[in-house]
Amino acid sequence: MESFDFLFDPQSVAVVGSLRGIDSPAVRYLRQYKNAGFKGKLYAVSRKSTEHIEGVCPCHQSLKDIPGPVDYVIACVPATVLMDLADECIDKQVKAVHIFTGRLRETSDPQLERLEQDIVRRLRACGIRVVGPNCMGIYRPESGMTFRFEFPRETGPVAFLSQSAGNAGHLAGLGIGRGLRFSKIISYGNGTDLNETDFLEYLTDDAETKIISLYIEGVRDGRRFLKALARAAAKKPVVVMKGGRSEAGARAATSHTASLAGSQLSWDVALRQVGAIQVESIEEMADLLLALMFLPPAQGKRAAVLCGGGGDTVSSADQCEAHGLVVPALSQDLREEFQRQLPEVGSLVNNPVDYSALGDQAAFDLTSKLLARHRDFDVVVCDTQVVWRLGYHNGLDRIAAMVDTFIKVEKSSLKPVVVAIHLPDFIESAAWSALIDQQARCWRAGLAVYPSLERAIKALAGFIYYHDVVRGG
Amino acid sequence: MESFDFLFDPQSVAVVGSLRGIDSPAVRYLRQYKNAGFKGKLYAVSRKSTEHIEGVCPCHQSLKDIPGPVDYVIACVPATVLMDLADECIDKQVKAVHIFTGRLRETSDPQLERLEQDIVRRLRACGIRVVGPNCMGIYRPESGMTFRFEFPRETGPVAFLSQSAGNAGHLAGLGIGRGLRFSKIISYGNGTDLNETDFLEYLTDDAETKIISLYIEGVRDGRRFLKALARAAAKKPVVVMKGGRSEAGARAATSHTASLAGSQLSWDVALRQVGAIQVESIEEMADLLLALMFLPPAQGKRAAVLCGGGGDTVSSADQCEAHGLVVPALSQDLREEFQRQLPEVGSLVNNPVDYSALGDQAAFDLTSKLLARHRDFDVVVCDTQVVWRLGYHNGLDRIAAMVDTFIKVEKSSLKPVVVAIHLPDFIESAAWSALIDQQARCWRAGLAVYPSLERAIKALAGFIYYHDVVRGG
Repeated sequence: MESFDFLFDPQSVAVVGSLRGIDSPAVRYLRQYKNAGFKGKLYAVSRKSTEHIEGVCPCHQSLKDIPGPVDYVIACVPATVLMDLADECIDKQVKAVHIFTGRLRETSDPQLERLEQDIVRRLRACGIRVVGPNCMGIYRPESGMTFRFEFPRETGPVAFLSQSAGNAGHLAGLGIGRGLRFSKIISYGNGTDLNETDFLEYLTDDAETKIISLYIEGVRDGRRFLKALARAAAKKPVVVMKGGRSEAGARAATSHTASLAGSQLSWDVALRQVGAIQVESIEEMADLLLALMFLPPAQGKRAAVLCGGGGDTVSSADQCEAHGLVVPALSQDLREEFQRQLPEVGSLVNNPVDYSALGDQAAFDLTSKLLARHRDFDVVVCDTQVVWRLGYHNGLDRIAAMVDTFIKVEKSSLKPVVVAIHLPDFIESAAWSALIDQQARCWRAGLAVYPSLERAIKALAGFIYYHDVVRGG
Repeated sequence: MESFDFLFDPQSVAVVGSLRGIDSPAVRYLRQYKNAGFKGKLYAVSRKSTEHIEGVCPCHQSLKDIPGPVDYVIACVPATVLMDLADECIDKQVKAVHIFTGRLRETSDPQLERLEQDIVRRLRACGIRVVGPNCMGIYRPESGMTFRFEFPRETGPVAFLSQSAGNAGHLAGLGIGRGLRFSKIISYGNGTDLNETDFLEYLTDDAETKIISLYIEGVRDGRRFLKALARAAAKKPVVVMKGGRSEAGARAATSHTASLAGSQLSWDVALRQVGAIQVESIEEMADLLLALMFLPPAQGKRAAVLCGGGGDTVSSADQCEAHGLVVPALSQDLREEFQRQLPEVGSLVNNPVDYSALGDQAAFDLTSKLLARHRDFDVVVCDTQVVWRLGYHNGLDRIAAMVDTFIKVEKSSLKPVVVAIHLPDFIESAAWSALIDQQARCWRAGLAVYPSLERAIKALAGFIYYHDVVRGG
């Protein structure tokens, strides 16, 4: 396999493009790299610029003015000057060019299509690899490469290969507050040189990457891609969202990345055959990735459900069974155990457990641990019933106490534990912040946390499907 | 139909129960009534109490010590003294008793079952109606009756009849930040006297109630209930969530409200036959109720989709079509219209529209209005792409400008408009508050707003299903 160190660990990066306006692409890349702690040398290149860009880095009028080598160029220039820039890159002997510039092949204009081809061919002929065009490029926290301010500096096990940078932002936005961390995110746009299959092959052998996720609108070479996907899925969990599943979606994909979406039926079959997990939305992807990232393997699908309130016990049981989990009733020996250990309320313990029926936190704590550790259950589903509890005196403390219990449950059972912490939109911002803290306590303790019980259950079910069906138990 | 004014508009309420502890049920009811601006006379009754409860209201040692009549009693006493309290209620000639007390019939203990029967029979024999036992009772903002601090004082068109108060809290918690407002919420627990059918019949003719929603675990008299449901659904939109759809859920329902859940198959068929809309979760219910509450009738299912970013155009189109909406391509005349009005970017306009391709807000504004008003489209789906936009300078202002556009679109098209405003969990609390404000701007302008594009689309699809299939276009 080809080493992509020159892509993911460049020693020097030059961002080429207009520096006018705080939101111009070139200025954003420079500020983001600085902000992400990029460890190599960073340069701005702009014909019309002053010597320094906002204290970020030195600015030069052309690539050749940069003293010393440049490994990686980010091209934020109009399409009309891309060819000139390609020549400069060749003269400077750069190793890779990320072409941010769009409105090329995806416009379906034959002239622009040819321009894109010519530029990429010219660079390739001189041994320079190309990311894009029409994309945001690479995020790798370890080397301080990024394309979004909110992407964390902390690294993690998940790689996301995406034909849409918007979806990459969306995925991170849905996951980072709950502990989703990435080895790499690659937004590769039109994929004219380096494409989905090249990156997928790389990620399959990438030691930083334990879980691979993909957003794909279309592939260049279906046969080669499926072969790569099969090899990837044999080695690591692979989660795929196919964009352009519908007629209108496929039409949008063509405008977006010049992709031919292919028929959804063949995708469904192919993904199942190679053992990749298909998801229908970025939200579902974020939720499943968190389960894959945090949870230990599940031994089965029998759930112990810890929640508060009678309606909750019904809803949670219904949702578990709708998603293919089983919620077993308590066995006779477990019933007796509860009556022995909790003479007053032991007879009220069921599965799901209604926290509110047990009277106090100590009883709930004991019940939760007994249930979760029991051999009758493989996984644990927990709800904090946030809105209800916030209506009480010291509601936030009560929620924190429940989270204490759930964390203890995870430590003592060593089973997969998912927790729902709803973040209501009507509360004061101080309460909101406190709930975010509880969320962080959960994932930092190794629990997978979700904003609703249903999402927790659905993600857990997808996780079990992976271990059960895909990995063969 | 029986008048239930004595239930929903009592002139005097007495809360009977221990006043020890700020979270004791009796103290909570008293504080909540005070907080909700209850307009009638409010009394506390407790054997062991001082003259006044926290400045809320006077306290008496028994019902008979209260000067003047008492219409409505909230009983928060242990089961063992319920019968004595029933006698006091009879002596005092109260009109209705809400029995908060639980652990009666739902325990399956024959003795407690009999006790519940005897108490209810005794009260009924003297013309007193009973709400419960084992429930939170009534919320009616108009009269200041409530059972949760966060329930709004503002009134609204939606009634929720629920065998679970937890689910009532959950529904309100999911909806009030997005404008969901209630005429009444009725938590009726075991429904031993007044049951689901009595309340449903009442709500069908209740002028305050324009939309009826139900959470049902089981019904007392299936035939009578279905007849009432058919009459209700012929008159108003009726949304039903059936709890205990699964085996484990049905088991939980029996422990919760002594309900026999019945087979789900017969519920599915019955609900479809009478024209009620079934939902699978409280979240789905909240989302659909908001659509029913805010949106004008839809003339069809052809969606104009306004969003930002290429991946978004693909995902939103896929989601629309997965939920049964249609996302038509632009007609030739509309294409020409865009090229006339926007010489520079008009050729980039598609459906879905990619905001980011249009360059500036003015172009997006014009495009959105042209699309939304066009006869080719029946409904409008809008995404603010919050996470992406927040990464830019003045991101919040950009989001506000998009919301401006969406509000104008609604005003000028008079079509149903749904908006997605994602509330990320990783942002500063000030940004979170600002997004909540944008959310409020939307619903106050008559748009239905959702925390994700998928939920917006799903709710809109349910709303169209209602107008198309249930109401017959």
